Amino acid sequence: MVKFIGVVTRRPGMPRDEFLRYWREVHGPLAAALPGLRRYVQNPPVEVSGREPRYDGVAELWFDDLDSLRAAFRTPQGERVRADESQFIDQARSFAMIVEEREVSL
Amino acid sequence: MVKFIGVVTRRPGMPRDEFLRYWREVHGPLAAALPGLRRYVQNPPVEVSGREPRYDGVAELWFDDLDSLRAAFRTPQGERVRADESQFIDQARSFAMIVEEREVSL
Repeated sequence: MVKFIGVVTRRPGMPRDEFLRYWREVHGPLAAALPGLRRYVQNPPVEVSGREPRYDGVAELWFDDLDSLRAAFRTPQGERVRADESQFIDQARSFAMIVEEREVSL
Repeated sequence: MVKFIGVVTRRPGMPRDEFLRYWREVHGPLAAALPGLRRYVQNPPVEVSGREPRYDGVAELWFDDLDSLRAAFRTPQGERVRADESQFIDQARSFAMIVEEREVSL
């Protein structure tokens, strides 16, 4: 299993509420339909008084392996997802990582 | 439930292998002993040919709520965890976020 992590900043001038709404209501369902996707979690920042979050959100998408992840983004649905990102994300201030989860025993 | 996400860069001059070993074998058990911690996942980057990962790792720590999270880092164990970070993490090129998980239905 591999996990795609997207750490994103909203488009300049877009109010935070509008960003969160778009992410949840429009982009979420689009990305949820990616072929081969196993799990999808959106992580909006918790409001902490006196602290501005460094980014506007973190997305996590799980796939069986690296090949499935790459294949998903090359499908027509993958292209729709990428195209939709420009509607609410500032790509220059966002980044992605591909990681492997290692559960630590408590 | 809230989740602390730490996105980290290793100390300058530290080889990646050594960073990953220290994180897993030394820092992992220390952080796993934080009071009130509910779940802990370390996410090392997957090696993708031709792509240098933007950061050296992402840590995720779950707590019941914001108060439990803050309280954990104020305990002696929390202080040990913070102190140990300087052994392998470049704080100037690392950051943390506190988020809420929103599972998206597939």
